[in-house]
Amino acid sequence: MRALVKHHSKYGAQIQTIDIPKIGVNDVLVKVKAVSICGTDLHIYKWDDWAKNRVNPPYTFGHEFCGVVVEKGSAVSCLNIGDYVSGETHFVCYECNQCLNEKFHLCNKTKILGVDTDGCFAEYVKIPSQNIWKNNNDLPYKLATIQEPFGNAVHTVLTSNVPTKTVAIIGCGPIGLMAVAVAKACGAGKVIAIDINSYRLSLASKMNADYIFNSLEIDIVSEVMKITQGNGVDIVCEMSGNERAIKQGLQILTNGGDFNILSLPTKEVAIDFTNSVVFKGIKIQGITGRRMFSTWNQIRELLVNKLVDLNPLITHELNFSNYEEGFALMEKGNCGKVVLYLEEEN
Amino acid sequence: MRALVKHHSKYGAQIQTIDIPKIGVNDVLVKVKAVSICGTDLHIYKWDDWAKNRVNPPYTFGHEFCGVVVEKGSAVSCLNIGDYVSGETHFVCYECNQCLNEKFHLCNKTKILGVDTDGCFAEYVKIPSQNIWKNNNDLPYKLATIQEPFGNAVHTVLTSNVPTKTVAIIGCGPIGLMAVAVAKACGAGKVIAIDINSYRLSLASKMNADYIFNSLEIDIVSEVMKITQGNGVDIVCEMSGNERAIKQGLQILTNGGDFNILSLPTKEVAIDFTNSVVFKGIKIQGITGRRMFSTWNQIRELLVNKLVDLNPLITHELNFSNYEEGFALMEKGNCGKVVLYLEEEN
Amino acid sequence: MRALVKHHSKYGAQIQTIDIPKIGVNDVLVKVKAVSICGTDLHIYKWDDWAKNRVNPPYTFGHEFCGVVVEKGSAVSCLNIGDYVSGETHFVCYECNQCLNEKFHLCNKTKILGVDTDGCFAEYVKIPSQNIWKNNNDLPYKLATIQEPFGNAVHTVLTSNVPTKTVAIIGCGPIGLMAVAVAKACGAGKVIAIDINSYRLSLASKMNADYIFNSLEIDIVSEVMKITQGNGVDIVCEMSGNERAIKQGLQILTNGGDFNILSLPTKEVAIDFTNSVVFKGIKIQGITGRRMFSTWNQIRELLVNKLVDLNPLITHELNFSNYEEGFALMEKGNCGKVVLYLEEEN
Amino acid sequence: MRALVKHHSKYGAQIQTIDIPKIGVNDVLVKVKAVSICGTDLHIYKWDDWAKNRVNPPYTFGHEFCGVVVEKGSAVSCLNIGDYVSGETHFVCYECNQCLNEKFHLCNKTKILGVDTDGCFAEYVKIPSQNIWKNNNDLPYKLATIQEPFGNAVHTVLTSNVPTKTVAIIGCGPIGLMAVAVAKACGAGKVIAIDINSYRLSLASKMNADYIFNSLEIDIVSEVMKITQGNGVDIVCEMSGNERAIKQGLQILTNGGDFNILSLPTKEVAIDFTNSVVFKGIKIQGITGRRMFSTWNQIRELLVNKLVDLNPLITHELNFSNYEEGFALMEKGNCGKVVLYLEEEN
Repeated sequence: MRALVKHHSKYGAQIQTIDIPKIGVNDVLVKVKAVSICGTDLHIYKWDDWAKNRVNPPYTFGHEFCGVVVEKGSAVSCLNIGDYVSGETHFVCYECNQCLNEKFHLCNKTKILGVDTDGCFAEYVKIPSQNIWKNNNDLPYKLATIQEPFGNAVHTVLTSNVPTKTVAIIGCGPIGLMAVAVAKACGAGKVIAIDINSYRLSLASKMNADYIFNSLEIDIVSEVMKITQGNGVDIVCEMSGNERAIKQGLQILTNGGDFNILSLPTKEVAIDFTNSVVFKGIKIQGITGRRMFSTWNQIRELLVNKLVDLNPLITHELNFSNYEEGFALMEKGNCGKVVLYLEEEN
Repeated sequence: MRALVKHHSKYGAQIQTIDIPKIGVNDVLVKVKAVSICGTDLHIYKWDDWAKNRVNPPYTFGHEFCGVVVEKGSAVSCLNIGDYVSGETHFVCYECNQCLNEKFHLCNKTKILGVDTDGCFAEYVKIPSQNIWKNNNDLPYKLATIQEPFGNAVHTVLTSNVPTKTVAIIGCGPIGLMAVAVAKACGAGKVIAIDINSYRLSLASKMNADYIFNSLEIDIVSEVMKITQGNGVDIVCEMSGNERAIKQGLQILTNGGDFNILSLPTKEVAIDFTNSVVFKGIKIQGITGRRMFSTWNQIRELLVNKLVDLNPLITHELNFSNYEEGFALMEKGNCGKVVLYLEEEN
Repeated sequence: MRALVKHHSKYGAQIQTIDIPKIGVNDVLVKVKAVSICGTDLHIYKWDDWAKNRVNPPYTFGHEFCGVVVEKGSAVSCLNIGDYVSGETHFVCYECNQCLNEKFHLCNKTKILGVDTDGCFAEYVKIPSQNIWKNNNDLPYKLATIQEPFGNAVHTVLTSNVPTKTVAIIGCGPIGLMAVAVAKACGAGKVIAIDINSYRLSLASKMNADYIFNSLEIDIVSEVMKITQGNGVDIVCEMSGNERAIKQGLQILTNGGDFNILSLPTKEVAIDFTNSVVFKGIKIQGITGRRMFSTWNQIRELLVNKLVDLNPLITHELNFSNYEEGFALMEKGNCGKVVLYLEEEN
Repeated sequence: MRALVKHHSKYGAQIQTIDIPKIGVNDVLVKVKAVSICGTDLHIYKWDDWAKNRVNPPYTFGHEFCGVVVEKGSAVSCLNIGDYVSGETHFVCYECNQCLNEKFHLCNKTKILGVDTDGCFAEYVKIPSQNIWKNNNDLPYKLATIQEPFGNAVHTVLTSNVPTKTVAIIGCGPIGLMAVAVAKACGAGKVIAIDINSYRLSLASKMNADYIFNSLEIDIVSEVMKITQGNGVDIVCEMSGNERAIKQGLQILTNGGDFNILSLPTKEVAIDFTNSVVFKGIKIQGITGRRMFSTWNQIRELLVNKLVDLNPLITHELNFSNYEEGFALMEKGNCGKVVLYLEEEN
């Protein structure tokens, strides 16, 4: 089969012909219909420090996908050949303390598809049956493949009790933009989108943010205090990873507010616990992955009932073979989600 | 001043001229701008069994209102003359176990405005300052006066975690209709409105219910199971008080679901605990009043941010002196909220 | 192997020699060390109406056990031969809405060991690997086998926020008695044990209940109100299934309290929703099974850290072949848990 | 009356004769029976930087007390002359967003007794009636006066779901020691006490900590991982304010754990959000004050039901006039709580 292989320990990747994966008794083989490119994939493609320390070329990368089950292991009973599926990308151990406390997404032995294993940038991908999510049949491929990052947004926003609350989304990459849509759909009183990139802020506007603030142009703290009558916001979803933004996020949070952080700052951030956390009685909640599978159920309901429209976010749809164009777009940053279609390759 | 007095222990009430209430050190005097008629007021007006056992004529009734502060007691610091206000109608003791556990709405010694005290169907009403809610200045009188029943709806719906969930509202009187609006605004995946009255169901449609079911015409259980793929609904808001409806509500609830009951059945209801409650692992939550004052904050955010539009519910606006027309409408039942304006009386 | 078989559709059961179960790829075979008798087993033994409608003789019954893994299917990776284990007795589907929302214990397609499948009253029992719970090696057999019913008690009590609260346990069968111990261990302010059987109440005393009330002898409601200064209790754990007890339980519950019901009343119970549920703002929570597996973790911590001592509850320890004596004790009712040891049979 | 006055802007304080406070309509006057010295009082006494920036001599300081109501304002109805009381020391506004959301302890306009107002180190203290807590009559003065700091411990520990959990208390000053007792009383599986002071650790032992670790002597992280089978602890209560301790606290926390911080680090602490917070999915919760008044109810139940014994913590009991000895003890650090009795002064 054809697969996009991280073939060397340098910039780039190439499409190669490799063997179709062999599945185990609890696995399924999925014929891939569409994939999408995550920021993580770009790190691997560009071969930055994080990538050097984490992945081992040559291997197939990619983890956002949708496709059809074409083969299943002998012990798989819940799935049928022909099922239209996507997949939870965190493979967990089911035996650690977290897994045995219904917190599978916090498993200490998590392996990630396309990072720790061969991924989905290929005609076929092997997935443990427990990680398969059955899609509704009428869900377009381009929405089905972006459910994984959408799940990060849903998990981050719906960790808090959103209805009637004022929510700030800091960092308007694709997941931040999805978070804007989720907060609006779930009854937030006001949603404030904050970024430094005007292209992304224009997408935030399309996702119906009530306020769009460029933190390079205005004083975020005073502006947010103004529109909240000095109260600050009830919920911050931190998706920028930027130190200054994190500190501003803590400043604009009202006493007793929620600070949900999904971003991965590349270095330590100094926090004034006394004034920003303790006296204010706030909660800082780290968010990783998606609840397995309550977040996926939330995803389904948001999409099936058309509570969110993610189409404006999918700014580019390409053939799989044009992957270089996709990665170039990602590198420039002026894009939302980039989807690659496998269909044409067959 | 002029006041609508429940003057005798029979059907009806009459406008009389009585003294303006004298306020205590912690009270305020409110000049009433608009009031609305609650089902409770109708019970009192009609002088049914409940009324006979609860209220003591002659007295002024009514509890839904908005107005302007015209006088305040010497110990009142939070309010100013001229403030545009409504009021929480439950006067609580602030010293029982519930009050000392931040559950003021569950105070065992609650006294209710217009039931246990002189009410707001008058030119002026006396309110303890702790019960006053400051309205935004641009909130129309007709919306300001119905915040109290709206709070019941908000409290009932937002007791559960609504976003992405399937919600059934059983009983589409004014509060049920408001609940439809709240559930929709707060990200419910689907909202199913159930009643036996086609007029009310047509209002449910205006409040944007996804499904409108007349339980006299269809088999509610099989119909709900059909549209939920056999899962049932995640949340039931029971606002009918009807035994059959309550039993149907328990049947359509999914395992682990929430059954929030605000209604007041007039007699005992027989429950199959084993099959409807225990094996299904459901939660039945009694709802009374409004949280003081987190529910009022939710009300404010829903109205200020225009997440709900209650205007279609306010089907009749009359002068205070036309109160008999208002009660007649209520008695017939083919109305939403009936608002009476005091302004014109001055 | 030898197994206690429900061999005919009448009273009783007999030990027969039958084939050792054949395991599937995801199963393990457990050599049983000890079992314990549940009330459910007694229903089956006595062949009452419930049993007639639920189970299909001939088959092996029993579901409370501990033992050692002696064989495992080819797809089982988490377990090793020789592991000392017990088992969660609810076999769930892992694909329904509840299973996909981390509520496995509420799976609508649950099959129960020894009820819907061959059980553990035998030398060997087949268990799906996902249902196996690894015991600490120093846990005595008699404690290991009663973890399953203990889990019901833990689940019921710890569904509420127990520390500092006043808790009433209604019904002091083995699970009620365990609940007394759990509530005491977890910081309940006061624990009130209620039953009609003086033998059981004497065991409640051994489990350190603060108050022991025989509801045949005293007026439960006035007595509880007296010791709670008229407030009532914060939490009721209903384990009697008795209508009068349920109604008393609702009466003694404080406004805003929790009513956790694990019992299975054999007929409908009429509830005064208006006064017992709605105005009081209480929560009724149905409890079934054990959370998979957070309840089992709680069980482990309670036992390992010796927060509870269940030994006084295990009133009888017999050889497996003396099962008739065990069932006779259960039928009389003057016993706590009855444990049968398989070891001696080999 | 006699009062301990912070009379100048230097080290120390002196007993002076000053006027008895005049109360307002909503206040009560309390004749003080006992007071206790908080770390905050020591800051004021020593006149450190924090004190210089916060308080304005001359004024009476002190905030931990018990006493008897001897006078009440005309608008006070809930209290009687002769009531035996203590007081919540945070005076809140009752009109901000936090106060109107049942989060009084997070009021942005909080004034603190003895810091922002005249305090209780005196024969009489003026307290707003809403801040009064009625003590059980048989509660000894020395326990009644330390309820305020005890409330900090209760609030910190019981913010998390403690039963069966492994809890680390970092920092064993009086509040940390109280936290050890609370965690043990409320069903923690294991409680680990960590400090650098052997005197305090010996008190932690008296409070029944399961493990006592001196972080100067052992490697906390490896030691905690050893006793938790590599899982880490479920809950950290951070009461040291020390940067290294905070970082260790985050390291020993299991994925998905709770980090409740009551301490007030004097400078920023650099946090590795990516690895310590986000990937681990932990929650950091700032804790301030006591819930008003649910924490006080928890205090009452813990004391009345003798779930905790705080007596070993009260290492010194002195006459009010010997205040200098009390402050000297506090400055040296080798003490638990120091209580001063007013009774003898009259």
